[in-house]
Amino acid sequence: MSTHTSSYNAVVLHAAQKLAIEQVKTAAPGPNEVQIAPRATGICGTDQHYYQNGRNGIYEVTEPLILGHEAAGEVVAVGAQPQQACLSCRHCLDGRYNLCNQMRFNGSASAKPPVQGSLQGRLNHPARLVYKLPDGVSYEEAALIEPLSVAIHSIRKARIHAGHSVLVTGAGAVGLLCAAVAKASGAASVTMVDVDEARLQFAKEKNLADVTFTRLPGSEGQKEFKVDAAFECTGAEPCLNACISATTAGGKVVIVGLGRPTQTLNLGLAVVREVELLGVWRYANTFPTAIELLAARKLDVKSLVTHKFDLLEAEEALKLVLKKPSDLIKCIITSDV
Amino acid sequence: MSTHTSSYNAVVLHAAQKLAIEQVKTAAPGPNEVQIAPRATGICGTDQHYYQNGRNGIYEVTEPLILGHEAAGEVVAVGAQPQQACLSCRHCLDGRYNLCNQMRFNGSASAKPPVQGSLQGRLNHPARLVYKLPDGVSYEEAALIEPLSVAIHSIRKARIHAGHSVLVTGAGAVGLLCAAVAKASGAASVTMVDVDEARLQFAKEKNLADVTFTRLPGSEGQKEFKVDAAFECTGAEPCLNACISATTAGGKVVIVGLGRPTQTLNLGLAVVREVELLGVWRYANTFPTAIELLAARKLDVKSLVTHKFDLLEAEEALKLVLKKPSDLIKCIITSDV
Amino acid sequence: MSTHTSSYNAVVLHAAQKLAIEQVKTAAPGPNEVQIAPRATGICGTDQHYYQNGRNGIYEVTEPLILGHEAAGEVVAVGAQPQQACLSCRHCLDGRYNLCNQMRFNGSASAKPPVQGSLQGRLNHPARLVYKLPDGVSYEEAALIEPLSVAIHSIRKARIHAGHSVLVTGAGAVGLLCAAVAKASGAASVTMVDVDEARLQFAKEKNLADVTFTRLPGSEGQKEFKVDAAFECTGAEPCLNACISATTAGGKVVIVGLGRPTQTLNLGLAVVREVELLGVWRYANTFPTAIELLAARKLDVKSLVTHKFDLLEAEEALKLVLKKPSDLIKCIITSDV
Amino acid sequence: MSTHTSSYNAVVLHAAQKLAIEQVKTAAPGPNEVQIAPRATGICGTDQHYYQNGRNGIYEVTEPLILGHEAAGEVVAVGAQPQQACLSCRHCLDGRYNLCNQMRFNGSASAKPPVQGSLQGRLNHPARLVYKLPDGVSYEEAALIEPLSVAIHSIRKARIHAGHSVLVTGAGAVGLLCAAVAKASGAASVTMVDVDEARLQFAKEKNLADVTFTRLPGSEGQKEFKVDAAFECTGAEPCLNACISATTAGGKVVIVGLGRPTQTLNLGLAVVREVELLGVWRYANTFPTAIELLAARKLDVKSLVTHKFDLLEAEEALKLVLKKPSDLIKCIITSDV
Repeated sequence: MSTHTSSYNAVVLHAAQKLAIEQVKTAAPGPNEVQIAPRATGICGTDQHYYQNGRNGIYEVTEPLILGHEAAGEVVAVGAQPQQACLSCRHCLDGRYNLCNQMRFNGSASAKPPVQGSLQGRLNHPARLVYKLPDGVSYEEAALIEPLSVAIHSIRKARIHAGHSVLVTGAGAVGLLCAAVAKASGAASVTMVDVDEARLQFAKEKNLADVTFTRLPGSEGQKEFKVDAAFECTGAEPCLNACISATTAGGKVVIVGLGRPTQTLNLGLAVVREVELLGVWRYANTFPTAIELLAARKLDVKSLVTHKFDLLEAEEALKLVLKKPSDLIKCIITSDV
Repeated sequence: MSTHTSSYNAVVLHAAQKLAIEQVKTAAPGPNEVQIAPRATGICGTDQHYYQNGRNGIYEVTEPLILGHEAAGEVVAVGAQPQQACLSCRHCLDGRYNLCNQMRFNGSASAKPPVQGSLQGRLNHPARLVYKLPDGVSYEEAALIEPLSVAIHSIRKARIHAGHSVLVTGAGAVGLLCAAVAKASGAASVTMVDVDEARLQFAKEKNLADVTFTRLPGSEGQKEFKVDAAFECTGAEPCLNACISATTAGGKVVIVGLGRPTQTLNLGLAVVREVELLGVWRYANTFPTAIELLAARKLDVKSLVTHKFDLLEAEEALKLVLKKPSDLIKCIITSDV
Repeated sequence: MSTHTSSYNAVVLHAAQKLAIEQVKTAAPGPNEVQIAPRATGICGTDQHYYQNGRNGIYEVTEPLILGHEAAGEVVAVGAQPQQACLSCRHCLDGRYNLCNQMRFNGSASAKPPVQGSLQGRLNHPARLVYKLPDGVSYEEAALIEPLSVAIHSIRKARIHAGHSVLVTGAGAVGLLCAAVAKASGAASVTMVDVDEARLQFAKEKNLADVTFTRLPGSEGQKEFKVDAAFECTGAEPCLNACISATTAGGKVVIVGLGRPTQTLNLGLAVVREVELLGVWRYANTFPTAIELLAARKLDVKSLVTHKFDLLEAEEALKLVLKKPSDLIKCIITSDV
Repeated sequence: MSTHTSSYNAVVLHAAQKLAIEQVKTAAPGPNEVQIAPRATGICGTDQHYYQNGRNGIYEVTEPLILGHEAAGEVVAVGAQPQQACLSCRHCLDGRYNLCNQMRFNGSASAKPPVQGSLQGRLNHPARLVYKLPDGVSYEEAALIEPLSVAIHSIRKARIHAGHSVLVTGAGAVGLLCAAVAKASGAASVTMVDVDEARLQFAKEKNLADVTFTRLPGSEGQKEFKVDAAFECTGAEPCLNACISATTAGGKVVIVGLGRPTQTLNLGLAVVREVELLGVWRYANTFPTAIELLAARKLDVKSLVTHKFDLLEAEEALKLVLKKPSDLIKCIITSDV
C-alpha cells in the first residue's frame, strides 16, 4: 500500500454537464483508514441527477465533486460502504445509522466540502467500513452490493417470510434487486409491473418475476389482486396508490423509489385495512448480508450488469444512462489498478 | 336470565335524523350467547354520522338500525366487544380479527340486515365476546372500554416504551384516551394540539398533556420540535402533515382519525427519515388489557364522561353531540334494567 | 359427499402394541364440517410413542385411539390441520392458538374421549381447518404439510433472514424440514449434525445441508463455529448445550425436539451473550404458508418420503419406524378411497 | 477543565480485600474525551465480588484496579455510560453494542490493563458516552442510572405493555428497579418474592409491588398463579424454575440475575408452552431513556439509596454491603470536587 501522496485520474463534476477527467492527489491513508483502488463502480440515479442538473434534490454541486458510491476495489478490500455515520447519535447507537443526520456519503454534495466518490484512482476510506471480498465474487458483482443493500433493507422492512406474495412496481435495477432478494427470502410469487416490456421480459427470463404486467393492477382491463407486500420502485404517485390498493389488509407497502416530495394518496384505503406505509432511506447492516448471499450464490447479480465503461469514458456512460435505453439495467465503470 | 322473547325500548334510526324510541322484541339468547341489559353506551362519531346523514362512510341506513357499540351492561357481563369476526380467515387466525372482512360490528349498517346496537333494553351477544366487569368499575366507565381500546391499539402500533415523547393532534375523547394510555405506558412527555383551548385546559388539568398548543408545530410563530411518535386524531390533512414533520427519524405516525379518503402528504419528509405511517382500524385483543388497566386504576376514564342522558333522551343527546360544545368530551346513554 | 353413517377400516390402538384394523362407523358430517377420505398420513414420533408405550408423555391411551395427524385426503380438501382450538381464549384471539389449553388434536389421547386420527376410512373435520390442495401437490406430499408446519413455525421463531447461518442438530424428518425451510428463507449456510452418516449424506445430496458433522461442535477434535440460529431437533441435552455454545451473541436457539422435561444447561453461556432459548409447541398459521411453498416448488418434500404402506399394513409400518433404520426418513400410510 | 496531569485520591484494589486509598495521576483528557469529577458512585455486586474474592467470574485482579461503574459526576456531564464498545463489529453496528466482545467496561479487570473505574478524583471518558444531567436530578440519583439501565433493558426484552402482570424474584436493588420500570411501563400488577420480609415491606411501601411472598409460587402452601412476564433477579435455580412455572403460555422469563453457569431447568414446562428464556447482559441504548424517566419524575430512585459513604470510606462501605443487611438497598460513594 502506498504511503505517499500520489496523483490519479478522477471523474470530476464541476457543474451540470461539466465533467472532466482530472489528475487528483490522494494522500496516504490516515489512521484507521485503508487506501482502495476502485475497480468497479455502478452508476445510479444519484449520479445521473448530479451530472444532468448539477444537483441531487436539495444538494447542489458548488465545489468539484468526484462521483461514485457503488464501489468495489482492490487492496485489502471490497464493497466499501459509502456511509460514514457519527457513531454517537441515538440512531447510530440504536443500529439505524442510515438515519444519522451527520452522515457523510461518498460522491455526495450533502457535506461541505463534498465527500468525494470512487470514480478516481485511489480512495481513502475508514477501515471499519471496508469488507473483504470472498473468493469467486468479482469487482463488478461487488459494485452491486450497494444497490443490493437497498433491496435487502427494503425486504427487511417488509418482513418478507417464506411463502409471501410480493408486488414490485418498476423493473429497473433496484426493482429487480428487490425481486431477487424477495425470491431469495422465500417469496412464493413475485408480480412485477413496468411500462417497458423488454425489462419485464428480462425479469421473467432471469426468474426474478413470476407474473408481469404493463398496466397497474386496478387500471382498466387489469384485474385486481392482493399481495402480502408491495415495493414501489418508480417514485410515481399512481404506482404508489396501486401498491396500496394491491396490498392485503395488514400488509406493508415499502416506498423504495423517491418521487415528488408531496404526493396525493388513497390514504383511507391504507388506514381502514391497516396497510403500513414504510419508506426506506439507504440501508443499515446490509453489507455483510449482501456478501454472504453473493458468496453462497443465493443471488445472481452479474446478469444485471448490462453495460461497462472504462473510468476515462465516464461521461459517455452517464450520457447513455440518461437516455434510459430498454436494454440497460446497470452500467458499471471499471478501471485497472 | 330471561329465556323468552320479550319487548324493550330501543333507539331506532330509520333514516337521517329520523330517530324513534320503539318497542323491539328480543329473543331468548341462542347457544353460546348471553343476554345483556345495556346500562351505559357511549356516543361516538359513528353514531353521529348515522344520525345526521343516515350513513357512515360507504354504509347507508336502508333498514332500521339500533345504534350503540360502546357498551356496558348487566347480567354476567360488561364491556361486550362489538366485533364479531369470522374466526376462519387468515386475519382472524393470525390474531388481527379487526381486519376480518366479514366482521359484524354492533350498531353498524355494514351488514345486511344491519347488526343492531346496544341502545335498547336487551341485546344477545356471543358469550366469548363478553367480559366480566371487575369490582369497582362502573357501567359508565366500562362504556369507555371500547374507545379506550382504540387508544390501546394505537399505542401498541407505535410501540410506545417508557421514556418516549408523544404528540397527539386532536383533544377529543379518542385523542385524550391516546394521551392517557401513552402516559400509562411510560411516555415521559405528551404534547397536545387542538384549536379548542378549553379542551387543552381540560387535558392539562387531568394530567393527560404536559405541553399544549393551539397551533400546529411548524406553523407561523410555532417552534418545531421532535417526538418519538405522533397520534393524529382529527382526520385533518394539515394535522397529519404536522405529525409527519414533528416525528423524529425512525419514529412512527399513527393515523387514528379517519379523514378524507384521499390526502396530500409530505411523503418525502416521511421517506427520507423512515418515519412510518401506520393506520389503525378499530382494535384487537384490547378488552382484557383495558379492563386490567381500569381495575388497577392505571387510568382515569371517568372524568372524560361529561354528559349523561337516559335511553329515552337519546335523540337529544345526539343533537347535543353534533353541536360539539367545548365542554363535551364524552356523552353516555344510560338505562336502568 | 356421503350424508349417512357408514363403516370404514380404521387403525385402532387399544393399548401398548395392541393395534387392530377395525370397522368403525363414521356419521355424516355435522354443521361446519366436511367429511374427508384420508389418502395419506405420515407416521411421526407421537404415533410411535403411542404404539410402543401406550402413551405419549402425560397422555395415556385409556380408550381406543385411532392414530394419525399428518394427513391429506380427498373430497374438497387436503392438509386438514389437526388442531381444533377454542377460539375464545387470549391465545386463540391473539393468533397463537397452538397455546390454547383446550386444544383438541387429532390422533391424541390428550382429551377424554380421545380425538380420533386420520388412520381410518372417513374423518369429519371442521371445514375452516381444511385447506384445498393446489394442482400438482400429491396426497403424499400433502401429508408432510403437518411436520413442515413445525419447521415453518421454528424458522419464524428464529426470524431467519436472507444471509443467515444455521445449525441443525438431528437429521430426522423434522430436522431436515427445518433445514429445507431455512434454505427457502435465504439461509446462506446450513450445518447439520447427526450420529448417522447415512442421514447426513442424504441431507447433502438433497442440498439441505452445506456442511455436516457426526460430532458436536466443541467436542474433541471438532472445531468451534458460530451461527445466527440453531435448531435443536433431537431432544438430547448435549445437543442443546452445543447449540447454545455454537450460537452467536444475540442469536436464537430454537428447541424443536422435546427431550427429558428437566435438563442441565450451560445457562451462563446463553445469558452473558443474550442467546435466546425459544421452545416451539406445534405451530400456528402455517398451513397456508406450507401450501404456498409446495405449490411454488420452493421446497421438495417428496424426497423425504422413503417408505409407504397401505392402511391395512399400519402396524408393520409402525414396527419398522420404531427400528429407526438409517434409510427411513418419513413413512406414509396411504389408502384408496 | 484542567488540562494538566494532576493527582487525586482513588480507591485501588490490589487483590482480594487489599484495598487502599491512593493518589493516582490523571492526565488531561485526550481528544474526544471529557474529564469528569465523579460525585456519586453506586456499589453493586460486581464491586463486591472484586473486593471479596479478587475476581469477578473469569476476570481476576492481576493489576491494581480502581472500582466503580455506576457513576455520576461533575463538569459537563453525568451518568457516564461505563461501556466503551468497538463500534465496528456487527453487534455495535446493529445497536446491540452490549454484546461487543471488545467491550471495555469501567472498573473491570476484563481487559489488560484493566479499565479503571470512577472511585477516584478524576476520570477521563469518551465524550460521546457522557450524558448531561437535567435540572433537578442529583448526582446520587444519577448514580442509579446504570443499574436502572439494567432494569430498562430487561423490561424491553420482555416487551412489557400497559396492562401486563409481572413477577420479580429477588427484592434487591435490581429487582426493585425492574419492578419500578415495569410499573412505569404500565404493568397492572407486580408480584415480588424474596426471603427477606423487610425488603418486601419496603417494596410495598414504595408502591413497587402489589403482592409479595416469602415463598416461591408452587412451593408448599403457596398458590400457583400466572404472569405475563417474570424477572429472575437472584441467580438461584429454584427461583428460575418458579419463574418458568409462573409464566403464562407464550410469556417471557428474563434472566437478570447471573447465578451458577450451569443450571438444571424445568425446560419441558417452558417448551410446551413456548415460554421464552431471555438472558440480559448489561444494556444498550438505555441511558437517554433513564434520564428522560428521571427528569419526568416517572420513577423514584432516590428512595433506594439507603446508605452513603465518602470516597475515603470506600472499604468500610464494601464491608457493610458484603454483610447484606436487610435495610441496605443501595449504597453510594460520594465525593466533593
